Parts: sequence; structure tokens; C-alpha cells
Amino acid sequence: MDRDFRDGYTGHMCDRYLHSPIPPPLKRLSPQAWDLWDAKAKPQFSLGVLEHLAVDIVCMRGELQPELSRPLLLLFAGDHGVVEEGVTASPREITWQQCENFSSGGGAIGLMCAGNGIDLRVIDVGVAHDFGSNRSVLNRKIAWGTRNLAREAAMDRSQCLAAMDTGRDLVAEAAASGRNVIAFGEMGVGNTTSASALTACLTHCGVELCTGRGSGLDRMRLEHKRTVVSRSLVLHGNPPDPVEVLRRYGGLEIAAIVGGLLEAASRRMVILMDGFITTSALLVAKTINPAVTDYVIYCHESGEPGHRVLLEHMGGKPLLHLSMSLGEGTGAALGWLVVRQAMDLYRNMTSFSSAGVTDSVSLLKEQGVDPRG
Amino acid sequence: MDRDFRDGYTGHMCDRYLHSPIPPPLKRLSPQAWDLWDAKAKPQFSLGVLEHLAVDIVCMRGELQPELSRPLLLLFAGDHGVVEEGVTASPREITWQQCENFSSGGGAIGLMCAGNGIDLRVIDVGVAHDFGSNRSVLNRKIAWGTRNLAREAAMDRSQCLAAMDTGRDLVAEAAASGRNVIAFGEMGVGNTTSASALTACLTHCGVELCTGRGSGLDRMRLEHKRTVVSRSLVLHGNPPDPVEVLRRYGGLEIAAIVGGLLEAASRRMVILMDGFITTSALLVAKTINPAVTDYVIYCHESGEPGHRVLLEHMGGKPLLHLSMSLGEGTGAALGWLVVRQAMDLYRNMTSFSSAGVTDSVSLLKEQGVDPRG
Repeated sequence: MDRDFRDGYTGHMCDRYLHSPIPPPLKRLSPQAWDLWDAKAKPQFSLGVLEHLAVDIVCMRGELQPELSRPLLLLFAGDHGVVEEGVTASPREITWQQCENFSSGGGAIGLMCAGNGIDLRVIDVGVAHDFGSNRSVLNRKIAWGTRNLAREAAMDRSQCLAAMDTGRDLVAEAAASGRNVIAFGEMGVGNTTSASALTACLTHCGVELCTGRGSGLDRMRLEHKRTVVSRSLVLHGNPPDPVEVLRRYGGLEIAAIVGGLLEAASRRMVILMDGFITTSALLVAKTINPAVTDYVIYCHESGEPGHRVLLEHMGGKPLLHLSMSLGEGTGAALGWLVVRQAMDLYRNMTSFSSAGVTDSVSLLKEQGVDPRG
Repeated sequence: MDRDFRDGYTGHMCDRYLHSPIPPPLKRLSPQAWDLWDAKAKPQFSLGVLEHLAVDIVCMRGELQPELSRPLLLLFAGDHGVVEEGVTASPREITWQQCENFSSGGGAIGLMCAGNGIDLRVIDVGVAHDFGSNRSVLNRKIAWGTRNLAREAAMDRSQCLAAMDTGRDLVAEAAASGRNVIAFGEMGVGNTTSASALTACLTHCGVELCTGRGSGLDRMRLEHKRTVVSRSLVLHGNPPDPVEVLRRYGGLEIAAIVGGLLEAASRRMVILMDGFITTSALLVAKTINPAVTDYVIYCHESGEPGHRVLLEHMGGKPLLHLSMSLGEGTGAALGWLVVRQAMDLYRNMTSFSSAGVTDSVSLLKEQGVDPRG
């Protein structure tokens, strides 16, 4: 146990995050929303998950006819000291290179945002690179990467809180400008190691279950990565304060997402959840304030095995199962297409009466037929 | 066994459909397509199912950079004599009412096509209604509904073949005008009974497994529907000619889709497969010519239980699992969003070299690392 680690832990740093309470979704709107679905010219419940999705969003937004704005995807980037342990298939410079690629519309996430009506903002909170005059990457650098979590706490207390504040502030700004849908993405070579350690620490699952191949480790190097995660768990243990867990095992980009998630939920924003890294941030946020998940739409199940552990732990039912595992927010971007479709149908689909179609749902209801009974 | 049924069966009516052979997909393009994916600035295989999808489409189209056209959704409508057995939750007039609704842009499928760049054409092949001067529903009426398949063969031989020809001709026309993506939808109160009977007959699965609640039967009426399907199986048996199976158990809209599927595959068109009814048509088409499934993308798994039976029987792995069960082509329309995204990434995503990102995939390949090993 190193000195920095012992000094850093001073109780419940997360107290300050309890000052923005998260309002409960307006569940009392749910029956009215279901009535609107049942008036649509289609068999009852026949749009399946899309119907539940729209009803959830009605309750999140607290209005019967919510109009979702153009989503903003905040992609936080940071480097990880733990890469010196040889836990990644990708060289470290890929973090900054991809930041430049994404922010100029390239890469998977750049293309997906451009094609699907999503605004993308790339934010450097901890990249080990000087972006110089490149203004397309927003400079909110807190450190040039984290420290090696296998040997010491990844962050200082002040760094961790500053990263959380950055996420919080950018979300607050988005809300102030009228946004009501937000997604988080991430870029950080080494961050699956961090997410695995957070998952193992907070869910108590076995390291082998929540540690995967990341960007392409072979079996031998995967074993090594698991050893590194296990070592970090022995070193840092399981402190009761979730922000302290985050400080020891996390990353600057992960901390920014934690802050952003809590702020978004406190403002009733619809949160499009991506894959393993962002969901590990959600796990931390949920440990700080369990109500945060009330505003989350689990957009996809990643191919990275730790994501399944997190989804089961939180009871999340993802919309898509396409074995995607590249992070960046790509699962959230694809999930948006389903969310947008659900809301378009909920708001704009013709009803039995407007379409001149015999109202078979009311007929069945009058007969007391329960199609689920 | 009624007279019409005995007279109708004269051997292998499907012979005429073997005259348009289905070319095999150009599998030799697959390694080149995978090389293109591996050059993209992302970890190898990290786009999961989207990567497989694009490679499959490359092979279907027989070109390394296929450009998919705006899809056409042919929605065939027909009524079913079997409704007189009380097997449906919806009254019969909903068939024609929905045809008018869809063709004027209403209903789920009207809205989804309009919003997702899909052209929709509604075709009456067997609706028990005179659409009069309404030109938005294409008039290719073959009969005013089928006969009651629980008492006699649903169609004459000439009706069944005429419906297949209608589907074939409309697809041929679409191909001639430059289309290379096609979807099929359907509308026909009573057609889940027909699809269940086709499924039970051709897969030999139990009637209880492939017969569901359709548009909203309660448990008692579901039991009755199963009895009706079972009775039809005793009456019609299991003739060796798939077109004869179709004639006895099918519907005019289902027969049109069978003809359309075979034609689409023979022209290397990408086929966006919807749910239970259209997949029951695929089952008939596959029994006529097994190669038809080489051109199929299984867009979703319907909530109607018979669809799972069909997918397992054919080895289809659907893109989406959203418990949708309204047919019309809505699952295909939603699946198109995933297909379009996959092709956009495959064709337009930046490569390591164009993005100035270190080529980690080549590095791993040089080291002999197999990320799946």
C-alpha cells in the first residue's frame, strides 16, 4: 500500500454529489401512455419493446408527449498508466490519434454520429498528448494520463473530482441549451482493465468473468491482464466510498462519465448507455446514487464479457445484441435509431379512429380478453 | 377430403420455379471484404455482427463495394376463409381498412417506411373488398379471399400459381428498375393460422409450438385455434410438392411472397426478412429451392412463437430481438437501419492509414496474435 493511496482516502468524497437529487420518473403518466399505444391501429402490445421504451421515456421526461432533441454524444478521452503492465493489444498513441480522427468525423463513431443525427464532442480529460492548436478536441485536460492502478491509486482525489466535475459541467451546459438526450462515449487505451477492476470491486464477481480481450489480446496475454486486475484488487481492496473506488481503479474519462451521468439523471435527461466502459461508470454512479439508472436506456450488449456481468448486476435489458465491442459510444449511437423509431411511432402513428380502422383492441377489452392472460 | 382438393394435386407444380436458378453468392470475395474491415481504424472484429452482415452482402451482390439502393417493401394483402372458424381476435374488415391506411402512409409500416427511406407498395392479391377508385392499393386481386383451409384447400392450383407469379413479376419489375434490396410485408386477418399450418406441415413441429395468439387471442381461443390447425393437418396431410402444401394451407399473400422471394434470390437481391408470416413463405420457398436463403437477412425475431420454430429450422440468426409481432414488414423496416449502418461503415469508415492511426491490427497479425484463439 503506497502512501498516496493511504492519504487519499478521507471518507465519503461522494457526499457533494448527493446535493443534486435525482427526481423519480413520473410513473403516474404510464397508464395514459399505454392508453395512447392501445389507440394506435395495431394489435395490442404488438410493437413489443418499442412500446415499453416510449412509456419509460414519457415517465423520465415527465410529459405525455415528449419531443426528444438531437442527442449529444460526449466522448471523453484519457490515457491509463496501467498500460505499462502490457495489458493492451493497442499501442498507447492510439488514444490521441483516435481523438483527432473522431473529432474530424472519422472512425466508427464519427461516421455513425454524422449519419444518425447525433452531435459528437470529443473531450480530452486525460490524454498523454499535446493536441496543440487542434481546437476540434475540447481541452479539459486534468492530467497526462492516470497512474498505474496495479501499483498505486490511478488518480489523486483532486484529479478524480475534477474529472467528475468536468462531466457534470458539460452535461449541465447541454441541458441548459435545451438538450434532453445524452450519450457518453470514451477513448482510452487500457480502459477495459480499469473497467474490469471497477466491476470486480463493486460487483464482487470473479476477475475471469469481467476481464476480456479488450482490443484483441490473445489467450496468454488475457491471462496476464487478469493477473494484473487481481493484483490491483489485493492492493486497493474495497473501500466503502464509491468515489474512492473510482479514484483507485478508474480513469479520468470514466470519472468524467460518472459525473455526467449523475448530472444528466438529476435533470431528467434520457441517457443512451453504451458498452462496458461507460456501464462501469454507471456502476460507480449507481453506487453513489441508485436512482441514476431510472434515466438509462441500455442500448446494447457489448461483446466484451464484463458488460454482461454489469447488465445482470443492474438488471439492464439491452435493446441490441450485435456483439459490437469497440466502445466510443457506437452501441449508444446505434441504439438511438431504435429509440427514435419508438418515439416516432408513439407520437405520430395513426390511431384506429384517425385511420378508419375497426378498433379491435377496444372490442377485446370490452370482451374482457387479456391477450397476456 | 373434398373434391377440389383431390383434383388440385397433380404432381410437382413447383417445377416451373426451378427454371430461374439461384446463383450461389460469390464467396471468393469474402477474404477481400474481411481485409477491408481489418484496415478500418478499430480493433479487429469489434463491429461484431455488422462486419459479418457487410461481408455477406458483398458475396450476395457479387461485388466488393456494393451500393444498396433504396429498398422497396412489397406488402401483399389477402383475406383468409379460415376466419369463419373464429381463430382471430381482429374482425375481417381490418384487412382492407389497413391496406388503405398503410397505402396513405399510416399505420406502423407506413410511418416506418416514410421515416427510413423505404418505398412501400401495397398490393391486393386477395382482399375480400372492392377498393373501387382507390389507386393507392395496387389491384392484382386473384380472389376475394381464400377458402377455409380447415375444410378444404385454401386455393385452386391456378389461384396459387397466379399469386406466386404476381410476386415474381413485381420483384422482376423492381430489379429491372435498378433495385437491389427488397422486403416483403403482409396484411391478412387470419394469416397466422395459415402460417402455423404451413410451419407444422413442413417442419413437423408440434402445433402448440408454432401456433400463437396472433393479434390477441386469450388462452381459450388460442386452444381453439390450435385445434383448427390440427384438424387442417389431418385433412390435408403432408404432400411432397411444396406448392401443393402452399395451395392447401397458404394464403394468396403468402403465395405472392413465395414467388417474390424466389425471383429476388435468382436476381441476387438482398432480401430483408420480416416475421412469422413472411418467414413461413420463406419456408415454402426454401422447400422449392434451398438456395433462396443465401440471399436472406433475418431482420428480427418476432414475438409470435412460431417464428422461433422457423428460425431454428432454417438456422437463421436474427439481427433484432424486440418482441415485435405486428407483421406488415415492420421488423424488416427496422432491420434495414442496421443493414444500412453496416454498409455505411464498411464503405465509408476511415482506415488506419487514412486516419493517421497506428495500425494495431497489422501489428497483431505480424505477431501472429489470433484474437479469437
